[in-house]
Amino acid sequence: MSGKKYTEEHQVVYYETNVTGRLNIGNLVDLCMLVSTIQSEKLGVSTEKLDEMGYGWIVTQNLIDVTRLPKEHEKIKITTVAKSYNRYFCYRDFYMHDENNQEIVHMHTVFALMDKKQRKIARIKDEIIGPYEGEYTTKLERLANPRAVEKVDYDKRYRVRFMDIDSNQHVNNIHYFDWMLDTLPEEFLKTHEVQHFNIVYKNEVRYGEVVDSKTEFLQDENVSLHQITVGDKLSCVAEVKWQPLK
Amino acid sequence: MSGKKYTEEHQVVYYETNVTGRLNIGNLVDLCMLVSTIQSEKLGVSTEKLDEMGYGWIVTQNLIDVTRLPKEHEKIKITTVAKSYNRYFCYRDFYMHDENNQEIVHMHTVFALMDKKQRKIARIKDEIIGPYEGEYTTKLERLANPRAVEKVDYDKRYRVRFMDIDSNQHVNNIHYFDWMLDTLPEEFLKTHEVQHFNIVYKNEVRYGEVVDSKTEFLQDENVSLHQITVGDKLSCVAEVKWQPLK
Repeated sequence: MSGKKYTEEHQVVYYETNVTGRLNIGNLVDLCMLVSTIQSEKLGVSTEKLDEMGYGWIVTQNLIDVTRLPKEHEKIKITTVAKSYNRYFCYRDFYMHDENNQEIVHMHTVFALMDKKQRKIARIKDEIIGPYEGEYTTKLERLANPRAVEKVDYDKRYRVRFMDIDSNQHVNNIHYFDWMLDTLPEEFLKTHEVQHFNIVYKNEVRYGEVVDSKTEFLQDENVSLHQITVGDKLSCVAEVKWQPLK
Repeated sequence: MSGKKYTEEHQVVYYETNVTGRLNIGNLVDLCMLVSTIQSEKLGVSTEKLDEMGYGWIVTQNLIDVTRLPKEHEKIKITTVAKSYNRYFCYRDFYMHDENNQEIVHMHTVFALMDKKQRKIARIKDEIIGPYEGEYTTKLERLANPRAVEKVDYDKRYRVRFMDIDSNQHVNNIHYFDWMLDTLPEEFLKTHEVQHFNIVYKNEVRYGEVVDSKTEFLQDENVSLHQITVGDKLSCVAEVKWQPLK
């Protein structure tokens, strides 16, 4: 048993893309999250239902492998499956396929269940995870951690705006990705696309806070390391392997 | 004859909304523009076709009337019709209807045709406007202009980010609306929604530029006046009438 699959189709529209004509990584993650949200609704464990129970899913890590990013107008299929879970974490996979049924993106995501009243991670309840029919395992996955920024090559500062917070009352994913990648030079962003993106979320950022986005670029490896902080508090870290834009 | 109508359905998703659970005004405009783009494709006058001919549509003004903004999960219909045109301007209307077929939003938009090589407004060609079957008129519409900001009540500064520019090579609409509305106090934005939005675009903003967003709030009228500048250059102005959020 490896969990129920769910697929939605989507056509990439211009405002999900940037000057390269390719889907933004932040929009990619939003589209995937939307598909898992729709699956949850269909299985009777919607965001609203969980909210009534006093819980909410939070993402602690995304590992994204990109063969190529879809272009504007391209029709894609986004498939998700909640593969397995242990006491505290649920592991969910996402796949993007193009019109030739080629897999072009794979994302592995770690979810945890937040007890909203106690503001801490809760044990995953059977009634919440059962409908997905994922596999229970006693094992914790050992996923690679992004390497830390040691020498800052690029540095920008952002203020969290009112419209950055979506109806889930969180800073939408898109903005974390924007803050990190926007530090890189224009010419680099125009000529490269993500090959692998490993992002770990540490602490939530709130409306009105000022975030510092620091980036180190490892020339030999074509890798950028990212760190988002609010004052002394680490908000998220990421390691990105780049490939030339085809 | 008043132009061919075209309708698309859409379900509002969480990342198009803000903490009020309502569709962001910037996303609303993006959704409308998408529908007109799809209509243009279907009529054989796509953005790509115009681009090959050396032209591109630009928006010079949006007048938005909101009865209420749709909520997350709500299914809406977006209808567009290119009603009329004269030598230099095309007037297009957009309507949003809810599931009870009630009109909840109406937007009137002025488009002009840009000659990309000469970087100036071109006369509207029959082969480009013909397929929409709008009415030719010799009249120029006299639309209200937003009143100018005279006394600055709120003031914020923004830098144009790489991801702000979409595949059309322009700063996406969303960001103009974000820059303007984000200046207002959180409490106000949480408890009010737009009733009428009149925005006039003057000069394009480019990647890396720093924009100043200045706002005057007319308490007696529940109206905010907005101005976006890059240095001394006026980029866009707007006047917004607000209503309490129901």
